[in-house]
Amino acid sequence: MSDVSAVKALVFDVFGTIVDWRSSLIADFTAWGEKRGIKADWTALVDGWRAVYAASMDVVRKNPQNGYVMLDTLHRQSLEKLVAQLSITGLTDADLHHLTMGWHRLNGWPDSVAALTRLKTKFIISPLSNGNVALLTNMAKHAGLPWDLVMSAELFEHYKPDPEVYLGAAKLLGLKPEQVMMCAAHNHDLKAAQQLGLKTAFVARPTEYGPLQKYDFGAKGDWDVIGKDFGEVADKLGC
Amino acid sequence: MSDVSAVKALVFDVFGTIVDWRSSLIADFTAWGEKRGIKADWTALVDGWRAVYAASMDVVRKNPQNGYVMLDTLHRQSLEKLVAQLSITGLTDADLHHLTMGWHRLNGWPDSVAALTRLKTKFIISPLSNGNVALLTNMAKHAGLPWDLVMSAELFEHYKPDPEVYLGAAKLLGLKPEQVMMCAAHNHDLKAAQQLGLKTAFVARPTEYGPLQKYDFGAKGDWDVIGKDFGEVADKLGC
Repeated sequence: MSDVSAVKALVFDVFGTIVDWRSSLIADFTAWGEKRGIKADWTALVDGWRAVYAASMDVVRKNPQNGYVMLDTLHRQSLEKLVAQLSITGLTDADLHHLTMGWHRLNGWPDSVAALTRLKTKFIISPLSNGNVALLTNMAKHAGLPWDLVMSAELFEHYKPDPEVYLGAAKLLGLKPEQVMMCAAHNHDLKAAQQLGLKTAFVARPTEYGPLQKYDFGAKGDWDVIGKDFGEVADKLGC
Repeated sequence: MSDVSAVKALVFDVFGTIVDWRSSLIADFTAWGEKRGIKADWTALVDGWRAVYAASMDVVRKNPQNGYVMLDTLHRQSLEKLVAQLSITGLTDADLHHLTMGWHRLNGWPDSVAALTRLKTKFIISPLSNGNVALLTNMAKHAGLPWDLVMSAELFEHYKPDPEVYLGAAKLLGLKPEQVMMCAAHNHDLKAAQQLGLKTAFVARPTEYGPLQKYDFGAKGDWDVIGKDFGEVADKLGC
């Protein structure tokens, strides 16, 4: 492990890294659909929704003249297209809102809460996610994530992997990039952070995308810390 | 008590409301001064520092064309003038930094941590302070303040009582103003919040300024909740 003794704050990717969005949403929507009397292939909806996630943010990233659009809004726009494509009928405006807010009700991976609680004893811990502040705050209440503060791409009006997000987080904390460690299950997120001078920690989440997972089964870079889960990251960081 | 059933989030003034800045800084600087071998009237420094606090922010508020300046920077600028005025000598640049960072090491009033812990079970709780994010984050770690997130004037590049701060906080949380309750020991802070539609809670801190306290001994407005401390506010809010 490289020298990480200067690190004061750990910032975390959230979707896939800390919470299991796929299983959470499928279970949430399936239970809700039965109660609400709406039949749909909820797994197809969830997988389709996530499949257009990066592209929806790229439109914002590449068109700054149009202003920043937060993730709740992008999620809603994508959902409206998907329900039409998948021929899901009978959804009211309130139903579409409820489904969109499903992204605020995600559950942590089994190791997340216990490991964050340990890491918090030694470091400042915060999300650094493309989710908006309200989404991340509501999710933390739902899943019991013990963040010290909530940092979101929304605060910088840029989506990861734009440099403004990583450097903005360090600046808000009054820290140098090398005093901040980006923690993620996605190699491309760590690569962007590392290029800007942040330290990096990787944990693989090989079931994040279920049978559709194509990459991020293992570390594909010279990351400072690699753990099988965040409990092992806490071990390696001496917490 | 008026109808506060729609409230989802409690946002708190911090300096004086949640932490006892005066006693904390006097004790911190006195102990440090003895160790460091620097004699000074630390009480005069602390009182003088706070006396220029509002004026230092007003310069920023009234000159937006000059850009936002965060509180750590204003504190440092005010300190440099004060040590000259009070003829405190022998302070290095590192000493001035250490003193400025004293505002990150404030202790809570006796009721603060226990009451916030109770309030957190039912509400989103966050500071909404003129302190910058790093200051509030470090203070929370130091004093054990269990915030769900950290909202600061810095995020909005405006100081309270500018409307952008109160309305910006509600917007970040995805809430309407009436779903947010401003909690403070300062009537003027609550007045600004109430005028924008936020709910209000008042707790008097009659020893905040020590013998120099001139106002805020009691509620001077039609606040939604008034408590002798935040424990009583938690009682009244059903936590």
